[in-house]
Amino acid sequence: MEILNELLVPNNTKIIQIVVDGLGGLEKNGKTELETAKTPNLDSLASSASLGLTTPIDTGITPGSGPAHMALFGYDPFEFEIGRGVLEALGIDYPLKRGDVAVRGNFATARDGLIIDRRAGRLASSENQRICKLLSETINEIEDVKIRIMPGKGHRFVVIFEGDGLSHEITESDPQKNGKPPVVVQPLASDAGKTARIVNRFLLQALEVIKTEKQANYLLLRGFASLPDLAQFSERYSLAAAAIATYPMYRGLARLVGMNVLETGSSWDDELATITNNKSKFDYFFVHFKETDAAGEDGDFERKVSLIEEFDKLIPQILDFNFDVLAITGDHSTPAILSGHSWHPNPFLLYAPGTTRTEGETGFNERRCARGVLGHMNSLEVMPLLLAHARRLKKFGA
Amino acid sequence: MEILNELLVPNNTKIIQIVVDGLGGLEKNGKTELETAKTPNLDSLASSASLGLTTPIDTGITPGSGPAHMALFGYDPFEFEIGRGVLEALGIDYPLKRGDVAVRGNFATARDGLIIDRRAGRLASSENQRICKLLSETINEIEDVKIRIMPGKGHRFVVIFEGDGLSHEITESDPQKNGKPPVVVQPLASDAGKTARIVNRFLLQALEVIKTEKQANYLLLRGFASLPDLAQFSERYSLAAAAIATYPMYRGLARLVGMNVLETGSSWDDELATITNNKSKFDYFFVHFKETDAAGEDGDFERKVSLIEEFDKLIPQILDFNFDVLAITGDHSTPAILSGHSWHPNPFLLYAPGTTRTEGETGFNERRCARGVLGHMNSLEVMPLLLAHARRLKKFGA
Repeated sequence: MEILNELLVPNNTKIIQIVVDGLGGLEKNGKTELETAKTPNLDSLASSASLGLTTPIDTGITPGSGPAHMALFGYDPFEFEIGRGVLEALGIDYPLKRGDVAVRGNFATARDGLIIDRRAGRLASSENQRICKLLSETINEIEDVKIRIMPGKGHRFVVIFEGDGLSHEITESDPQKNGKPPVVVQPLASDAGKTARIVNRFLLQALEVIKTEKQANYLLLRGFASLPDLAQFSERYSLAAAAIATYPMYRGLARLVGMNVLETGSSWDDELATITNNKSKFDYFFVHFKETDAAGEDGDFERKVSLIEEFDKLIPQILDFNFDVLAITGDHSTPAILSGHSWHPNPFLLYAPGTTRTEGETGFNERRCARGVLGHMNSLEVMPLLLAHARRLKKFGA
Repeated sequence: MEILNELLVPNNTKIIQIVVDGLGGLEKNGKTELETAKTPNLDSLASSASLGLTTPIDTGITPGSGPAHMALFGYDPFEFEIGRGVLEALGIDYPLKRGDVAVRGNFATARDGLIIDRRAGRLASSENQRICKLLSETINEIEDVKIRIMPGKGHRFVVIFEGDGLSHEITESDPQKNGKPPVVVQPLASDAGKTARIVNRFLLQALEVIKTEKQANYLLLRGFASLPDLAQFSERYSLAAAAIATYPMYRGLARLVGMNVLETGSSWDDELATITNNKSKFDYFFVHFKETDAAGEDGDFERKVSLIEEFDKLIPQILDFNFDVLAITGDHSTPAILSGHSWHPNPFLLYAPGTTRTEGETGFNERRCARGVLGHMNSLEVMPLLLAHARRLKKFGA
């Protein structure tokens, strides 16, 4: 889609892309979550909108949230893979800089040099916080590299290495199985020697600090990653872009592609208020609603249905914002009956008065979208479609 | 789809892919073969299945059976071209080995060094058999290369060259038109000199044997080919795969991708019995029903309709096998009104209780499939879809 960039033309139109996380689902008693929910506003909006289905990655592939969002933002998730360490750092709202190396850590239990529990007996988060504080107080810097250690949930934590000449191309220090000795980190590239040396010294120093702990007397590091070099939204699409999300990881993903991440509260109403306060300042809004995905992950069909109904009640307010282009979709499906992400395509609704072929029929759900005028698309096609409807792309060729 | 391989996870689910050869058709008196046939079982199954259409190769491209099946098996038919010589060898159930060179032969009639009939006056098969036997008794080996000559139908035969350092990259010995002199074979690659020399010596020796024949006093060789180097089903998909087919070519294609080709009888009932006897031993079954294609090729609309009705009667038995994932499709369309393969996409039905969005509407035919929840796919997407529904793929990214 390099051609897209060459076709950009200025306009003062405004676009809003609302991602209802894990929106798509599967049938329980013959109806999906969307089909079960009473959604009079969405149903009615559908008749004057275009519908379709979007495949996040490729047929049959179940995406994580990282690649699913990258695709929605128009970045090929195979070309721009976001490493686990980066996602973890984004997930705790850490302002990762280009050149930093981030890695996910697990506390573990070792005996006689062998890992006997890779999760350190499911460490309490309070214990995790205490040990991370201890480590942070003891280990600040190795050579010229600053080291930050931050607790996550349970036995998980994140380590950030900050300094010159670092590389994420090193092996992991995780034997992957219990009953195996921990692994020394090796460089995988010619310029990764320094990083491997520093990580190994970090491991030794950290082990010295925690060796007397009962549960968490060992640590494993995996998923070394750096920020990918991504063309930012402003240059890629000539859009001043804002992101409104309550969960850190989605704010982080948006920051990665150069969106301005706006302060917001924890409720959907807070998120809408943030749009009100900022609408004049940006061309494009990415608004993320997380809770539907969480309900799907929990296998709670009824809660997901009721959250969809809550979302439906926001539609009049959203329409009142009068965006030129409004898209409502999911990043991936999270069917409650599967209790997790799935490969099924996302319902997609595009409302752009005067520039769409409309359905002329009420109803917004997976099966209606499968017969929608937009057909089946890849998520990578969403951004070009939004730009086109915003009249921000000129003609290709003469 | 290299990523697919990295996402494979073990499971004990079972998949069956039933290929009703040439299933798709075109309308006669306003209805296609599938629409004309009474198919109560398929129609009913469709309501709790997902439907779609699959394009075997690319829009507008009419496939041969080789590439159409390769695509269904998930191998890009442009990347893995199966040469004519290989297909002919598979078609007579010859156990071709890697490194063998196979070529299709035509007996011809020549006079004064010019080909005057490229089909040797439509040679009788019995004559073909007699001459191939004569050739086989006279020519066994040239240098260190073993030579096998096997009759096909009419004027056609197959020659297999077995030995070290052979290459299929040589020119053909076929002038393509009557009234032209036969052609000496030339190497097309630096390591093909030996093969060209041996093939030319074979041609001279064979001509000496048949020069007194009335009709078949000459022979042409074209489509030199070797087995392509294909990742086998077991490593590509982690599936123990079995093939059940009554026609040699389909058994051969299945063997090519590493399926276990099961002994079976000549009827559809025999093929189902073979499933019964082997279900416990394999994860994936490819089951091929040939007759529908033959009826289409013959332009016999009514026979194709009646065969589809026969197939419909097998559905209850097929459902009783309780596979986790059942796909029913064609390899390519063979509309009776065209008397041949066509480029029209294949009706595709996917039944996987609990993991599909279902149609909720009866009917299985080309037009219903065009409006199905799976939309329009390429045949290459079928294997990823089957693996996903069999829960044999983990999440991509986090």
